[in-house]
Amino acid sequence: MNYRMVLHMIGKIMLIGAGMLLPPLAVSVIYRDGCHWEFVITMAMFALCGALALIPVKKRELFARDGLMIVALAWILFSALGGLPFFLSREIPDFVDCFFETVSGFTTTGSTILKDVESVSPSLLFWRSLTHWIGGMGVLVFAMAIFSQKDARTTHIMRAEMPGPTVGKLASRWKFSVRILYCIYIALTVIEFVLLLFGGMSVFDSLVHTFGTAGTGGFGVKNASIGHYDSVYIDYVIGIFMLLFGVNFTVYYLLIAKKLRRAAVNDELRIYLGIVLTSAVLVALNITGIYGSIAKAFRYAFFQVASIITTTGYATADFDKWPVFSQMILIFLMFTGSCAGSTGGGIKIIRVSILVKSAVREIRRTISPRSIVTLKNDGKSIGTDIVRSVNSYFAVYMLFMIISILAVSLDGKDITTTVTAVIATLNNVGPGLGAVGPTGNFADFSAFSKLVLSLDMLAGRLELYPILVLFTSAAWRKSRYI
Amino acid sequence: MNYRMVLHMIGKIMLIGAGMLLPPLAVSVIYRDGCHWEFVITMAMFALCGALALIPVKKRELFARDGLMIVALAWILFSALGGLPFFLSREIPDFVDCFFETVSGFTTTGSTILKDVESVSPSLLFWRSLTHWIGGMGVLVFAMAIFSQKDARTTHIMRAEMPGPTVGKLASRWKFSVRILYCIYIALTVIEFVLLLFGGMSVFDSLVHTFGTAGTGGFGVKNASIGHYDSVYIDYVIGIFMLLFGVNFTVYYLLIAKKLRRAAVNDELRIYLGIVLTSAVLVALNITGIYGSIAKAFRYAFFQVASIITTTGYATADFDKWPVFSQMILIFLMFTGSCAGSTGGGIKIIRVSILVKSAVREIRRTISPRSIVTLKNDGKSIGTDIVRSVNSYFAVYMLFMIISILAVSLDGKDITTTVTAVIATLNNVGPGLGAVGPTGNFADFSAFSKLVLSLDMLAGRLELYPILVLFTSAAWRKSRYI
Repeated sequence: MNYRMVLHMIGKIMLIGAGMLLPPLAVSVIYRDGCHWEFVITMAMFALCGALALIPVKKRELFARDGLMIVALAWILFSALGGLPFFLSREIPDFVDCFFETVSGFTTTGSTILKDVESVSPSLLFWRSLTHWIGGMGVLVFAMAIFSQKDARTTHIMRAEMPGPTVGKLASRWKFSVRILYCIYIALTVIEFVLLLFGGMSVFDSLVHTFGTAGTGGFGVKNASIGHYDSVYIDYVIGIFMLLFGVNFTVYYLLIAKKLRRAAVNDELRIYLGIVLTSAVLVALNITGIYGSIAKAFRYAFFQVASIITTTGYATADFDKWPVFSQMILIFLMFTGSCAGSTGGGIKIIRVSILVKSAVREIRRTISPRSIVTLKNDGKSIGTDIVRSVNSYFAVYMLFMIISILAVSLDGKDITTTVTAVIATLNNVGPGLGAVGPTGNFADFSAFSKLVLSLDMLAGRLELYPILVLFTSAAWRKSRYI
Repeated sequence: MNYRMVLHMIGKIMLIGAGMLLPPLAVSVIYRDGCHWEFVITMAMFALCGALALIPVKKRELFARDGLMIVALAWILFSALGGLPFFLSREIPDFVDCFFETVSGFTTTGSTILKDVESVSPSLLFWRSLTHWIGGMGVLVFAMAIFSQKDARTTHIMRAEMPGPTVGKLASRWKFSVRILYCIYIALTVIEFVLLLFGGMSVFDSLVHTFGTAGTGGFGVKNASIGHYDSVYIDYVIGIFMLLFGVNFTVYYLLIAKKLRRAAVNDELRIYLGIVLTSAVLVALNITGIYGSIAKAFRYAFFQVASIITTTGYATADFDKWPVFSQMILIFLMFTGSCAGSTGGGIKIIRVSILVKSAVREIRRTISPRSIVTLKNDGKSIGTDIVRSVNSYFAVYMLFMIISILAVSLDGKDITTTVTAVIATLNNVGPGLGAVGPTGNFADFSAFSKLVLSLDMLAGRLELYPILVLFTSAAWRKSRYI
């Protein structure tokens, strides 16, 4: 590892963190909730860590593993410092809980340890939701876009942080691209905010829920989540915007650049919408008995399917009480997740689609050994390297999940709670089933389990490798170039 | 499909089936339990289907898919006819239940729909357990060994039926090899039978449980399974023999041929024993609180770990009441299963090991992109084709599992029961958790679910492709060579 350079970069990122505490500080002043000093102290801590940026760097070379290390360490430090306002205000007295909650925020998971979210101070709730919005497009890409670096070494960081199996075409001129992506992100955020205001939500609630939707996070300010408002309009606005934030952002770029044909042939988008529609209809049919009418059932089914596939985690109904068939569909949607290059989590539609396609090819090959089947995506053939890496990613993913489940099972919770707690955090969804269902929370887990689940959230958000690299000795070895 | 040839082959296999009913017929006569006519009629039905062998065959060529079709159709027909004694005697009044029970027998699964196994006639219980023994090494390989075919076309069938990713070295001179494998199988069976007699079991019980162990099936004759005998000696005899039948039989061949060095470098065997030992110790530590002493805890833990990893499914304790950590270990062992080329089910240790190795390689490649890592097994490098096919197998496996879970979840049983019912059948284990736990049974599922689970058992035993081929139109198309 190029220690100097890694610390230098982490320092720069921490300076951004200091700036991000200004909005919640303002909220605290406006609401006079007495949390302003907590934010000031936290800002000071971020700035102090930012001093790492002063470390003089002799060699600027970064290896791939150094990029992964920067991402992993920066996210962990960011979450530890970001949890300070909760800790200092004593509204979340346990530091592990603060860390869990902040990791859950930045990774856009939305799992909470709060038993009564409505009793928390407004500025802290605002900060909690803002972490979703910041995490949504990647704190570091954000940092990069501001501290513009001319050379190519930052692509390692970019690659480690952007979701999906390949960095899209946009990445070639990526500093330019990042700005476009942020414009799209901000534009969609503003539109949703305004639409929610129209629906009768207060300014505060609209902002908070827009942050939660944009980052596909899921933190809210009501114990009953979106179900609190019981409004068809709000359900559909948030439902549709969750889906919009789950689309690969390059599709919007293509639409803006009037490359309509290329946007239209996006296989991932079509599969994504196909899965959403099929699942919503199946769940609606399955739960019609509970809600009386098919329209009402579809409203709840559509919202929940959109919320789960985009790994947001908002709820308008307690799906822990739904029939097992619907619950199983939701669990599988947690795994598929949304499109690559969106703010959502999960394995990502494109990977699932490549996995299924390569599985089907294997079946065909076994049936007709001499047949030649090429895998295609967006009309182009998929390289064997990508197929291999997607298959391996899946294997690593399952391994990571199994080890996490075993670790968390030591707490002795029931199987459904244990397994869905890991599934919901690793896929950055938020709520699971059982004790961690939409009306439950993660408060009762041991500190050890909370740390394991925090690692799951980070691993899910950063797509495994940055977190795995922390556990290899090779990455910590001082690189001989310095 | 070469219809004539396929039907001709199926007919030959059915003739073997007729002969297999002689032992239970003898048991019925000895015990005078009044089931002799049922067996005679069933024999007649097998013989009738055997008449298919009289179909004149013009072209003897078989495609790979024809081999898969023979295997799939023969197993289904075999199970349907094999269930007749239960149906005709009205001891299992529902035909779907009879089919389920017989599929469970031949596939060496051991899942049962019987609520009170102790009330069933001895000859039927004997037949039920004999199906495990027959299924253990593959009805068809058995058939091949007798109806010796000189040409190479039967290797398609062999390949479809032998468990594991590659047909081992033995397969090159496989008619000879099959005989050796059967000698080993029979020798181990006899030894276990004698050892159980020494332990004070009756001749009938010893035979039945030896069949269940040899086939890694799990059908017994007591409601409390092996726990009924409450004997340390019996627990360890059956425990160790389950493990022995879970070893790749080529290892025994190498031992007999005094190729000790090649037997010793068998990676799969070492990983298998390592997993068994680690799991048994972990579970023992986890359940010591329940059983008071570590010796007693280890006895139950060892037996259950051996039973589950070999996918036998015998029980000496109700592990549905064990802590979640132990249950999760058992569930993961259901997936790994035993060694390829054994009588056990599951994904197989060798595949899991290749999956893990390729996952680790991918992690290394991401950390150090320029590093070159070769995957090795038994000291030899693993071809990329095998790595690819193992990864695809895993993907197909998960897909098959997901679709099955969704289908079975329509019954509305709780999640643990639904999911573990599929896991336990697809991996040919037998019992799961919840309502299908070691003290439960599969009786309460709908006929539809029972058929889905039967298909899972067949898919698990035949390693997916023969069952998948049934759902492709290409396989049913008349091949133009005729």
